[in-house]
Parts: sequence; C-alpha cells; structure tokens
Amino acid sequence: MSATGHRREHDLLGDRDVPADAYWGIHTLRAGENFPVTGTSIAAHPHLIGALAAVKEAAARANEDLGLLTTAKADAIAAACQEIRRGALHDQFTVDVIQGGAGTSTNMNANEVIANRALELLGHAKGDYDRLHPNEDVNLGQSTNDVYPTAVKVSTITAVHELHTAMDTLRRAFAAKAEEFRDVLKMGRTQLQDAVPMTLGQEFSAYAVMLEEDQARLLEAATLVHEINLGATAIGTGLNAPTGYAEAARRHLAAITGLPLVTAANLVEATQDCGAFVHLSGVLKRIAVKLSKSCNDLRLLSSGPRAGLNEINLPPVQAGSSIMPGKVNPVIPEVVNQVAFEVIGNDVAITLAAEAGQLQLNAFEPIILHSLSESVAHLRAACLVLAERCVAGITANTERLRTSVENSIGLVTALNPYIGYGAATSIAKEALATGRGVAELVQEKGLLPADRLAEVLRPEELAGQDSGLRP
Amino acid sequence: MSATGHRREHDLLGDRDVPADAYWGIHTLRAGENFPVTGTSIAAHPHLIGALAAVKEAAARANEDLGLLTTAKADAIAAACQEIRRGALHDQFTVDVIQGGAGTSTNMNANEVIANRALELLGHAKGDYDRLHPNEDVNLGQSTNDVYPTAVKVSTITAVHELHTAMDTLRRAFAAKAEEFRDVLKMGRTQLQDAVPMTLGQEFSAYAVMLEEDQARLLEAATLVHEINLGATAIGTGLNAPTGYAEAARRHLAAITGLPLVTAANLVEATQDCGAFVHLSGVLKRIAVKLSKSCNDLRLLSSGPRAGLNEINLPPVQAGSSIMPGKVNPVIPEVVNQVAFEVIGNDVAITLAAEAGQLQLNAFEPIILHSLSESVAHLRAACLVLAERCVAGITANTERLRTSVENSIGLVTALNPYIGYGAATSIAKEALATGRGVAELVQEKGLLPADRLAEVLRPEELAGQDSGLRP
Amino acid sequence: MSATGHRREHDLLGDRDVPADAYWGIHTLRAGENFPVTGTSIAAHPHLIGALAAVKEAAARANEDLGLLTTAKADAIAAACQEIRRGALHDQFTVDVIQGGAGTSTNMNANEVIANRALELLGHAKGDYDRLHPNEDVNLGQSTNDVYPTAVKVSTITAVHELHTAMDTLRRAFAAKAEEFRDVLKMGRTQLQDAVPMTLGQEFSAYAVMLEEDQARLLEAATLVHEINLGATAIGTGLNAPTGYAEAARRHLAAITGLPLVTAANLVEATQDCGAFVHLSGVLKRIAVKLSKSCNDLRLLSSGPRAGLNEINLPPVQAGSSIMPGKVNPVIPEVVNQVAFEVIGNDVAITLAAEAGQLQLNAFEPIILHSLSESVAHLRAACLVLAERCVAGITANTERLRTSVENSIGLVTALNPYIGYGAATSIAKEALATGRGVAELVQEKGLLPADRLAEVLRPEELAGQDSGLRP
Amino acid sequence: MSATGHRREHDLLGDRDVPADAYWGIHTLRAGENFPVTGTSIAAHPHLIGALAAVKEAAARANEDLGLLTTAKADAIAAACQEIRRGALHDQFTVDVIQGGAGTSTNMNANEVIANRALELLGHAKGDYDRLHPNEDVNLGQSTNDVYPTAVKVSTITAVHELHTAMDTLRRAFAAKAEEFRDVLKMGRTQLQDAVPMTLGQEFSAYAVMLEEDQARLLEAATLVHEINLGATAIGTGLNAPTGYAEAARRHLAAITGLPLVTAANLVEATQDCGAFVHLSGVLKRIAVKLSKSCNDLRLLSSGPRAGLNEINLPPVQAGSSIMPGKVNPVIPEVVNQVAFEVIGNDVAITLAAEAGQLQLNAFEPIILHSLSESVAHLRAACLVLAERCVAGITANTERLRTSVENSIGLVTALNPYIGYGAATSIAKEALATGRGVAELVQEKGLLPADRLAEVLRPEELAGQDSGLRP
Repeated sequence: MSATGHRREHDLLGDRDVPADAYWGIHTLRAGENFPVTGTSIAAHPHLIGALAAVKEAAARANEDLGLLTTAKADAIAAACQEIRRGALHDQFTVDVIQGGAGTSTNMNANEVIANRALELLGHAKGDYDRLHPNEDVNLGQSTNDVYPTAVKVSTITAVHELHTAMDTLRRAFAAKAEEFRDVLKMGRTQLQDAVPMTLGQEFSAYAVMLEEDQARLLEAATLVHEINLGATAIGTGLNAPTGYAEAARRHLAAITGLPLVTAANLVEATQDCGAFVHLSGVLKRIAVKLSKSCNDLRLLSSGPRAGLNEINLPPVQAGSSIMPGKVNPVIPEVVNQVAFEVIGNDVAITLAAEAGQLQLNAFEPIILHSLSESVAHLRAACLVLAERCVAGITANTERLRTSVENSIGLVTALNPYIGYGAATSIAKEALATGRGVAELVQEKGLLPADRLAEVLRPEELAGQDSGLRP
Repeated sequence: MSATGHRREHDLLGDRDVPADAYWGIHTLRAGENFPVTGTSIAAHPHLIGALAAVKEAAARANEDLGLLTTAKADAIAAACQEIRRGALHDQFTVDVIQGGAGTSTNMNANEVIANRALELLGHAKGDYDRLHPNEDVNLGQSTNDVYPTAVKVSTITAVHELHTAMDTLRRAFAAKAEEFRDVLKMGRTQLQDAVPMTLGQEFSAYAVMLEEDQARLLEAATLVHEINLGATAIGTGLNAPTGYAEAARRHLAAITGLPLVTAANLVEATQDCGAFVHLSGVLKRIAVKLSKSCNDLRLLSSGPRAGLNEINLPPVQAGSSIMPGKVNPVIPEVVNQVAFEVIGNDVAITLAAEAGQLQLNAFEPIILHSLSESVAHLRAACLVLAERCVAGITANTERLRTSVENSIGLVTALNPYIGYGAATSIAKEALATGRGVAELVQEKGLLPADRLAEVLRPEELAGQDSGLRP
Repeated sequence: MSATGHRREHDLLGDRDVPADAYWGIHTLRAGENFPVTGTSIAAHPHLIGALAAVKEAAARANEDLGLLTTAKADAIAAACQEIRRGALHDQFTVDVIQGGAGTSTNMNANEVIANRALELLGHAKGDYDRLHPNEDVNLGQSTNDVYPTAVKVSTITAVHELHTAMDTLRRAFAAKAEEFRDVLKMGRTQLQDAVPMTLGQEFSAYAVMLEEDQARLLEAATLVHEINLGATAIGTGLNAPTGYAEAARRHLAAITGLPLVTAANLVEATQDCGAFVHLSGVLKRIAVKLSKSCNDLRLLSSGPRAGLNEINLPPVQAGSSIMPGKVNPVIPEVVNQVAFEVIGNDVAITLAAEAGQLQLNAFEPIILHSLSESVAHLRAACLVLAERCVAGITANTERLRTSVENSIGLVTALNPYIGYGAATSIAKEALATGRGVAELVQEKGLLPADRLAEVLRPEELAGQDSGLRP
Repeated sequence: MSATGHRREHDLLGDRDVPADAYWGIHTLRAGENFPVTGTSIAAHPHLIGALAAVKEAAARANEDLGLLTTAKADAIAAACQEIRRGALHDQFTVDVIQGGAGTSTNMNANEVIANRALELLGHAKGDYDRLHPNEDVNLGQSTNDVYPTAVKVSTITAVHELHTAMDTLRRAFAAKAEEFRDVLKMGRTQLQDAVPMTLGQEFSAYAVMLEEDQARLLEAATLVHEINLGATAIGTGLNAPTGYAEAARRHLAAITGLPLVTAANLVEATQDCGAFVHLSGVLKRIAVKLSKSCNDLRLLSSGPRAGLNEINLPPVQAGSSIMPGKVNPVIPEVVNQVAFEVIGNDVAITLAAEAGQLQLNAFEPIILHSLSESVAHLRAACLVLAERCVAGITANTERLRTSVENSIGLVTALNPYIGYGAATSIAKEALATGRGVAELVQEKGLLPADRLAEVLRPEELAGQDSGLRP
C-alpha cells in the first residue's frame, strides 16, 4: 500500500492504483470506468452476490478435493464466501448491472473481493496476491462462462421461490374472497355486455385458479434452471478443469445451496444456451398478463362510486387526488398493472439478448440477469401489495349486484331451452325497448307457466351452482 | 419450348424446365422451392408489384438516355411495366412474402416477368433471352440492393396515403359526433373513478384531435420514405452504374410515380439503413395505440345495457351471441383493437429485422416490407370500418348522462376555491356515506349561499365551456 | 329460394338475401361486411375448420345421448362435419381471420355451413331452418365462448404435433452433421474472439441438443392445451347445458379427435383464461430465438468465400445476386431468421390480446388463434426447409479449420495450469505482437518441456473429448 | 412536533406521525407504504425533480399574478423550488419510481417538500400547514393530471438534449475515423458474403450519417414534447383554474426553464394523451436499433485476432477473460448492444402503458416516465462510452484489408458491363473452384485487354470515389 492510501495492481493493460481499503481490485476499477451506464451496481441484486459466493466456495472445495488448492486457501476462500452470503461486503460489488463482457467483470469483482477478504482472514494485506490470487486461486479451474451462468441460475431459483410464496399469498387472498362472496349473485359479462348470472364468488375464484396454474408453471420453469454448466470452463469443453472437477463442484454447490442442481449433459450447448432464461421470462410474462387482467377487472368492478359499475369497493389506501376532494383511486391495482407492463417489456429485452448470442457464448447475459431479476422481484412485491393492501379489504355492494340480476335482459338466455332462441330474441328486444323485465314479458305472453319460470330463474340454477360447476 | 409444354432455362446452378406459359423463369422457380413458408405470394401486396414495375421502367428509360439500352428494348420494357402497373400479370409474381436473399427473388421475379412480357411485345417467344435478358437488360445497371428498397419505398408511400385518407374519414366521423354531442353534459372520469363534469362532445373531440395529430406524424414519417438509393447498386458505391444513371433513374421514377423522390446523399449509408421503415412502423404503432385506446373507451362507454355504464349506444351490426338472445356486442371496436395488437406485434418484428442488418446490407427487408404493408393496409381497413360501421351511428343516452352529473360527488371539486380542499373532502365523505347530494349538503351547512352555489355549479361553467377550453 | 338465385334469411337485425348456393347464411354475410380487414378467410387455417367440425359433431352426439336431438338430425350433422374434416366445404368458411366478437362469427359460419349441408343430406333445401336450425340444433347447448376456444385448442394441438415432427427432422439433420464432423478440430469463439479449440461436431451437436430441449418444452406446452371448457356455455356456469352434457361432449370429442382431452376443473376460469395460449406462444418464441441464433451462426461460419470465416459451406440453392456474378447467399438461414422475427412479433400481439381480456371473456381470441397458427405453421416450414435445403448439404473446410487451431493464440489457455495465468498472458501478448506461435514461444522460453507441451496440446485433449464431454 | 421526534399529520384516511425532520408528509408516507416495488425513489430521475420544482414555481407565480397567492407565500414557494432545482432536498423525494395513482404521489411528495421548506424559509415549523398548505397553496389551481405530465415533459426535454449532445460526440468520432480511413480499400459485404470493394472510410461514414439522421429525428420528436397541458387541471376542462391561469403559468414556466413551451389547443385531449411519449420512445428505439447494428458490425469487423475477420482493432479497455490469457473482448460495443435491448424492451412497456389509458386520463404515466428516463439516460451513457472508449481508438489492419480486395472474386462484378453477367458468372465459378484470381483468368481467356482491365479495376473506380458517391 502506498502512503497515499492506494495500492498498485497490475493486469494485461498495465498498472493502476486502487484505494487501499477497497476489497475490489484493478479489474473492477477498469469495469467501473468502462460501464458507467445505469449507476446501479450489481449489489442491487443481492441474490446474485450470494450465489456468486456460493459458486466460489463450491469451486474452492472442489479444487481442494482434487489437491489443486491447499486446505488453508480453501478455508480462507470459503470463509470469505460465507461472510458474503450472510450479507457482508455487498458494497464492494460495484460493477454496473449493465456491462459488456458476458459477466466477466462481475466474476472478476467477485474474485477480487473474495481474494482480498481471504487474504485478510489469513492475516495478509489486501493486494498481496502472491499469497492468494483472485484469478489463479479464487477462479481456479473456472471461467466466467461457467461461473456466471451458474450463479445467475442459483440466484434466480432463490428469487423465484420468493415469488412463488408471494403468489401463494395473493392466491389465498383471492380464494378467501371467493368463499366470502359465494352467495353474492351478480351479472356475468362478456365483451363488457351483460351476459348471464353468476356469483361474485365465482368471479374471484377464477382469479385464484389463474394464480394457482401460474404457480405450477413457475415451478416447472424453475426446474429447468437447476441445470448448470459449472466445469464447462470457457466454451463447454472443460479445458483446464481436471477430471472430476465438474462433479465435485456441482456436489459442493448443491450442498451449500440446498438445491438439487444437475450438470448439463452437453456442456458446449449449455454454455451458449439461454433457453431456460427465455422460458422463465416467458412464464413471468404469462403471470404478468394474468395479474394485469385481474387488476383491470378490479378497477372496472370498483369504478364509480356513482357513475361506474360500483360492484365492489377497494379499500382506500391514500387520498386519490390533489384536486378532487374525497376521491379514492385504485392505486394498488394500478401499480400492479405497471409492474406487468415492465415485465412484458423486460421479456422483449431478454428475447433480443438471447437471440444475439453468437457461436459458443451469449455475451449479453448481464442484461438477461438484470431484467429477469427485476421482473421476479417486482412481481413479488406486486403480489404482496395486491394481496395485503387491496384484495384482503375488498367488500361487495351486494344489494346493487342482486338488483342488476333481477333487471337483467340476460336472464332470457336461461329460457332458450324452453322457448327457443327466436322467441327469446324477441323478448330481449322488447325488454330493451320498453325497459320492462324479462320474466314479466314471458308471463304476459304466456310462454312459460309461472311456477316453471320461477324454477328456471332460481339463482342457484342460473349460476350453475347445482351442477357442480361451482369452484 | 419443349413439346411437353416447358421451356428450359439456365442459371448458376444448372438447367431447369419452367412451364412454357409462365412469364416467370428459373430464378422464380428456385425461389418457389426455397421459400415454401406462408403460401402467400408477393402479389398480396399489389402496391409493391406496381412499384417494382415503376422502378424497372424508370431504369430502362435511364439506360436508354445513357445509350446503354436501345429504344426498342426500352419501349418494350416500359410497355410491359405499364401493363403490370395497370394490374396485369400480378399472378406471375409468385415468390413468397417471406423469403431469404434481401429481396433478390422478388427482383428476379420482376426481371423475368417483365423480360418475357417485353419479348412477347417485341414478337419473340418467352425465354428467348438472347434478344432481351432479364438480368442484362431489365436489371441493367441495377442491383436488388437498390431496386428493392426503392420499390418498397414507392409502394409504402402509396399505401400510407391511402391510410391517411382513411384516418381522415374516421377523424371526421368523430368530429361530427363531437359537434352533435356538444351540449350533452356528463361525468368525466380519471382512473375509472368519477371525477368532474364535461360534455360528451369534449370526449369525442379528443378522439378527433388525437387522430389529427397522428395524421400529421404519419405524413412526416412518409416524407422520410421519399429518400431512395436507386443507382447505389450492390453496396452504395454505384459500381456498374455509369455516371448520370442515378439521377436519370430518379428523375424518370419521379415522373412515372408523381412522387417528389430524392436520391440519398450517402448511398452506402442509404443502402444498409432501414431507419425510415423503423420510424414509420413506430408511427403506425403510435396510431395503433391511440386507436386501441379510443376503442377501449367506446366499448366501456357502451357497456350494458343494464349492468354497465350505458352512456352511449353503438349501432348493432350483427347478432352478438350464438346463445344469448338479443345480445349485441361491440364487434367493430373489437376488431380494431385486434388490428392494433397486430400492428404493435409487427413493430417488434420490424425492429428485430432492422437490428439484424449486417455491414453493407440488411438481408431481412422482405419481412420488413411484409409486416409494414400488413400494418398499413389493416389499419386503413380498421379506420374505415370504425368510421362507417360504428362511430357514424353512435347515439347518446343523454338523460342518463345528465343524471349522473347531478348525483355526482365530483361536483365538490368545483367548490374547492370557495370552501377549501379540507371542507370539500368532508362534504365528499358525507355524501358518499349517506347517499345525499353535494349541493344539498353544502347548503345545509351554510358553506356557500344558494345563488353563488348555483352559479358555481352551472353546467357550462363546470365543463369549462366558458373559458375557451371547448374544443 | 327466390327466382334471382338468392334465399332470404332473418336475424336480430332483419332480413337479408344470401346467394342460393351458399352454405353460409345471414350471420356470415354480415360478418363479411363487418370485418373486411385482411382479405384472408379462416379457411387459411384448415386445422381450425377441421376442429370446429369435430366439436360440432361431438356436441351433436352429446345432445343425441341426452335425448335433446333426434338421431336423424345428429346423424346429418355428424355426416356434414365429417365431410368438412375430410376437406370439403372449406371455401364456405369465409369470415376474416381478424374479426370482432370473440369468434362468434366463426362459430356462426360453422353452424350455418353445417346446418345447410346437413339439410341437403336430409333431402331438404338450404335455408330450410325449420327442419334443422344453425343455432337451435347445430349450436344446441353451446356458446361461442366454449365452442371456439375448444376448437382453437384441438386445432393447435394438431398443428403443434406437425411442428414437433418438423423439428425432429431438423434435429436429426444437425445430429448427422455432428457425427460427420466429429473429428474436425476448430477454434471455438466467445464474444467473436478466438477462444479455445473444439470440434465442428461439438458445434453442430449443440444445435441438435437445443432443438431436443425445445421439442420437450413444446410437448409440455401442448399438454396444457388439452384442457377444454366445452360445456361451459357463455361464461362457464354451464347455463343451458344440461347435466351430463359437458362430459358427454368431451368424451365424443376425444373419440373423434383421438386426443386425451380433459374438461377444466373450473369452467368460469377456463372460459376467460388465455394462459395456455400465452404459454405456448412463449415456447414458440423460445424456439424462434434458438433457431434464429443457430441460423446467425450458420451464416457467420459460412461467410466468405475469401473475406469471411469460410469454415463451412452451405449448399447453393439459387443465384445470390442480380448483379454480382457467382455470388451465393445464405438464403435459407435468412428466411428462417425472418420467420423467427415474425414469431417474436406475434408473441407480443398475443400478449396484448391476452392482457386485454375483460371479466368473464377474452373477446380477442381470433387474433390469438391467427397469430398462433401462423407462428406454428411458419416455424414448421422453416424447420423443414432448413433441414432439407441447408443443413443436410453443409460441408466443412477441414483444412482451414485445422490451421486456425494451430495458429491460435487461444492455445495458451491450455497452459494456464502449467505456467500460470500471468506467464500465459505474456506469451499471448508476444504471440499477438510478433505473429509467432504459442508453442514455439513456450518452448523458446523453456516454460514447459517439449513432450509435456505436445501432450497438453493434443487435439482430443483440447476439445475435451477424453473427458467425456463429447456430445 | 411531538416529544418523540415526530409530527402528526392528517388526511382523508386519518392521522399519521411523520418524522419531525422530514420535509415530506403524510401523503408521501402512505405512498411509501403502498408502493414498495423497486426500492428506487423518483430521486433517481433528477431532471424530474428539477422539473417538478420549476412547475410549482411557475404555478405559484401565476397564482400571485392573479391575486390568489400572497407575494410572501409565492416568494417562499419559489425560493424552495429554486433550492430544489439547484440540487437540494432531492433525498426528500422518496416515493417509488413505479407507483399507482397517475403520479399523484409524486405530486403530493413535491407539494409537501416544497411547503415544508417554504414554511422554514418563512420562519415557521415544518407541518404548520395553516400558514402555508401543500394542497391549498403549493398545489393551488393545479391537479396531478396537469402538473405531472408537464413536469415529465420539461424533464424529458432536458434529458433529450443531453442525449443529443452525446450522439453528436459519437457522430464526430465516427466521422473522424471515416476521414482517417478514407483511402483504406476493403471488400464490402452483403449477406455476410464478399460483395464488391469499398473503403473503410465509407463504412465508418455510414455510421456517422446514420447518427446524424437519428439526431434530426430526435429533435423533431422533442419538439412535440414542448406542448403542455398546465391549466387543464383534472380532466382538461380547467375546473378550478381561473381565467388567465393557464397562460400565466405557461409563461412563467417558459421563463424559468428557458424552453419554448406551448399550451395544447385541446386540453381535454392533451390530458389523456401519451402520444408524444410513445412517439419519442419510438425514436429512441430507432436510435437503439441503429446503434446496436453499428456495434454488431464493430464486433464482427474486429473478430479474431486470428480466426476472425480481423479488419479493425478495438482499443483494449480491460482484460477479457478470467481464464483465457491475453484475450481482449469487445466489451464496449457489447454494453451498447445491451442498452439497445433494454431500450427496445422499454418501448414495449411504454406502448402497453399508453394503450391502457382510459377515458380522461392515463393512470400509468409513472412507468412511462420511468422507462423513458432510463432509455434516454442509458442511451446517452452508451453513446459517450462508445465514442470515447472505443471508436476513438479504433485502428485498421490496412494490409489485410487490401489483400482481401486483391484476392476477391467480387471483383468480377466490375466486369459485368464489359464481359456480361453470363461470362462473369463463369469466371467467378472458376476462380472459386481453382483458387485463382479473377484478373488472371480474364486475361488468360482474352476477355478484356490488359490495360482496360487495369483501368476497370482501379481502386478509386471500384469504390465509387470518382463518381461523387464518396461520403
């Protein structure tokens, strides 16, 4: 370390001074200068930082097993990695979330931080790389091209499980409302036009079932992410990684993370392929589409209070307007809609990045990681806030809903089997023109005896609850 | 011609028989085998066929001017081209709309059809290329790389002007309704919640103004498409095109088409650049977004008839349901929404194709042409059908609209300047809780004298019609 | 039938004449007037026409089982449907592929064609609906909202299986080349920079494996499409469909199509949900992304012939240029790229359409069906043409490939474990600056004995073929 | 202020404590709880914070002019706003970048911070709203629905001008290289196949011209953003804004910002319309597409060093690999590609948000602002880093480039006008098969005299530099 608070480091391009107290080194320094794009560092994705540490610890242990790394070094590296996984030193991961180089700068940043922390733990000065080297020890037998995708996968799995839990919270909130509203009769609508009766419980049940299906798809997609390419090194041929390394590293990583990771059967393919990320992003997009549709419905059903549908009430969570007193807006569904739009946009960005891969590598994995992490984290926040600050507090305007069924022309559909589509159409037209009720007209015209009519128009019958269709 | 109804043609790869009566030749034959993708031929884009003929005629005349083509040949080529522009022989343009080769097959198809028709006009047999050759005469001084983009531009300009006219029809339909509904008071809504009063005329006027702005943007974007690269030949260096050719060809093409075409200042750039198409597609997407939003509104405002907003009525154009008698659906806005979704998707396809250009050429112009042509043509159809089968027949439920204003809590906003945001908020809450009217509560509490209150709540005042904001 | 060759039909909006020989009727007539958008009729999707006929036959049989339809009528309807499934009457399906009304016009078109053909088979005149009615008999117990999505699903499954077969053809073509090139050593590349050695067989094997994984994902996505909502009628409550109908209809449809269809557990959810289509489109996008990447690679590896990489030769399939003699272009990969761009754009259109669903129905399924059908069919064509007209004929420039390995600086990576990253970096820099070979420099500097060096640089070792990584 | 370091504030929903030293208040507090989405506050968009302050100052001055606000209050508000515009208090803008409520929370946050700072400047305690009120004074005559879009526009204009400047830096870097490489002859390529000769200067000139055109489009799009709706209040009817307010506020805002802002002619339309943002995003996407294409080219041309095109050298800016010694990667173009993918994805998100607007307002402007701001800022960073860390240091491998022309088969194209397409094709095939040179074969076959051949193949002639096509 120089007297001026810096230490000098060296790389392919020459010498540079880094701050003496920095755990990162010359590669991170240059990356900082090369990628001043977003101002957001990879520390914004803490699951990634943790996953990088897990991969480095696993690699060190595998190298130790194979006799390539002393136990002292391996222990020091592992100890540094564990600190990082517990949340320490994240501020030392300073490279930008959008970076060139296929993640090399992220990997180098990790190598440097871990090496310097390990050096400290061994009682040496930071930068004393003759004793423990970022590249030759921490990165031993590794390449960015296997370390980075593996870390992204571990990170993604963790984040996806958090999303799954949040979706479950939301699903249960919808299901609770479905139960609460099981007997609230209302008009169903197709193409925004009055259709036939149903219950508000059936309406909410659909949202719960949608989520349940999406949760299943999410877990399936996450399964694909468990296939890693650790041991592939640069292009999948495993150059520099000794026999046994890939399996040892996988085994250690599975143990450290508790995840059932498997090594890809074809490492050349696995190293260049982003299919699992594209697939997962597609599933996130599907989730976003459904969430957005559900929120559109909630906003529509709660429109009013007087010039709207006014069927349900969303709990007020803040004043709605800086100018219109008393106005309360559906701000929670609105924020969920926006997250959905972002996720759909991110899916396009990920698609472009994946398509742009060339030959043995996709150089654009950093934007894939960044976009995917954002999508997963924001969807998670959206699900939680929707469940807790909106769905849980929804109430129904039961009286208004029931009246709308009684006045409805759509009731005529139920009479199709008894009076025919043609006669039913005439009744419907007359009801619309005169403002009179369907039942009244049917009776007046003697099309169906009163008792039969009453039976046919029984609410439970109309909503299909007797026929086992009830959710 | 062989006895079996075929003639033999020759190219780089060898000999092939083509049907004796075909105007197309061996290059078209091979393209047909190579690109069996959509089953839709380029004849589905008639403006493109016409534009190709115009370019070929202009090139022939330029070559004639420069002494490179005899007048007899030039006349025959021009005559064939004119027939094509009048609609003849389009069935001979058989190559698929999605094709590899940067449009080479389309250009070759045109060269062959024009050569064979010109041969006929000169009294020779089809295939007698020693007398007039598809490549050496019809394509003289040209490359697919300048002919094709130029033809796509001429074609696009024509189609865009048709779209502009259709948008004008729609704009006028909205404007007529704005005038018709100028005095129909209603509640304005923000975030689907009741906001403050306005007129239905103001609502429809907004749709007309949106279109007017979009029309202006469309014409601006079309202007950029007038810059052509004819004379650039293969990569923009003009190799094989003699001095004076580019200007002569441009002059003839401008005369033939009646369009103020200009030659790009930098032909190397112009030959590889798809910027004008990406830009135009972006503007089409903008139009699609606005049209979709307007149609969403029309569907929402006409929702009902009893359990919806029921503010306006769309003219019924077909029975709405195979099961629900009397149901009429907003099918015209719905079809426009779908065209909008297609246009937005096409924009992404065009974006990817443009980004994939490499070095001196974009090989993916065929999908750009195809997607762009679809977007323009479908938007045009959508505007016309929306104007004529929907907007023109819209009626207002004036009574219902007026009542909604009188019952509104949003009226309280107008009192802000007189009683303050805090007091107004209390009134709003009480009105909502009790179901009582805002004016009644204000008077009861003595917050404003009756005459002042009446003045403040004058409809014209509320809708801002006195303050010059009326459209 | 009138003397003028027309027959008069009636609907909600009044009377209209339809051509006497048309199997379609008044609803189709109006739909034709309402949706003049693309000029392409739904007959462009023959799998859909067949699927509609299968659904109608199944429904007729279910109604017969329940005693709601006479056997005579059911037989006539079934016979008409079977003719349609064998390819007859497709020209009578004239409604536009982009249409409003959630598919109502497609359903009505089917009802009318089937009814009129059934009437003929029963010995009656077309239009004699008192004897057999499009709505009251053919559509009995059905709604567009259950018939249409069910038909779309059956249609999609069939098309997807054809795509799967085409992908298999392509996968096998790649795998055959992987075997053929198993011993062709070459330089692998990351970020377009020379990396480390591999074999051309490994490179092609990766393409085969990618496809294999995509095939698995495709089948998974297709499985989800087997869940139908037949029997849901308008909104999923099953109104008008008697007890037992849903299960009977499903059973008949499974038997007719040979597909293991299941009825959704929650029909309200299933009727409004487009999740399975969004999901499938996402998988198609994934396939498109990978195909496009593979084609980008093929175009890159075959660049040249003299100023490019020139590693492989694609078979020439047509003359490449109208101006550059002898030029042969990678037109087959190029057309595949364009199909990929289209599929990615279609995915965005489908996403928007799915997100726009409201309450109990998605009115925009027609554009979803259209886009999805296009994507599946075009991908299928692309896979076949790529396999047969490109991959199968690829040859390798073996000598050039081997030389590039011998001259490579990337060899130095293999020395990392023996001489260290630092020394290796110095060697690499000197080799680059002087143009000398890596092995030569290592020996000159005495960094490794000659025999050890030879062993480390053995091709099989370099390509990882000894370590079991070989595909 | 309470003894516990909090002060109590009140809103529609009740009372809440906020930290005594916070400039923000109860509305910001609730927004923080409602929108815990990204963890990134609006302070990440400093131009927006400055623009909000400018709008609030302009509104205060307009209210002062109209006698609605005392000069003392207006002065205090203006002073607070000026501090904010100079960079103070940005840490008090804590609401999330993705938020529901159409920007209400952002507006409320600004009202509260400005009110509390103004109170301090007037010598009062924070929270003493009886003396100066966030809503009744700072927000006087305003609505989120006019304030927020206006601030977003002012912010966007500022950011766009910074982008324009960065593009100019990049354009000049490309132009300088075009000049430097004006005499470096090379092979041009179409479809990655050798085409005809050009100069490297022409190649770089195309990049400069592309940028120049994009700069022009950017300024055009920015012009549209100068149209504001300040004075529209809630829905464009100007309710609560007195006569003269809109014009006074616009005049003050123009003076404060130095921008030629104009008030929209139709404020109802302007309040609900996001067209200018969609349009601008479309132009940003165009820029991204071109930048990405240029970077793809740079990566391709610099591929190698030995097994690639190796035509140009990008300056090394960091070590390229953690495993491959000496490897240098094109990390700067790669990071630009990724920014381009992000911008294209953001465009889709913006499109969806714009399409989702309903009736009199688009509730989703926050995601539009966020995505647009990211796109502009990241593109700016990308242009600067590309200019300074890549383009400026590019060198050419002149010798290799010249040799590739001499060996080229593409030379044969230049002979078309002299020996015909047919003969030229034969020469090309023979050259390719035998490895011999085109000129040699032409002479051997006596197709052209030696002196004429030499003249035709003169480099300047080939590159079109004599014909005025040179950029």
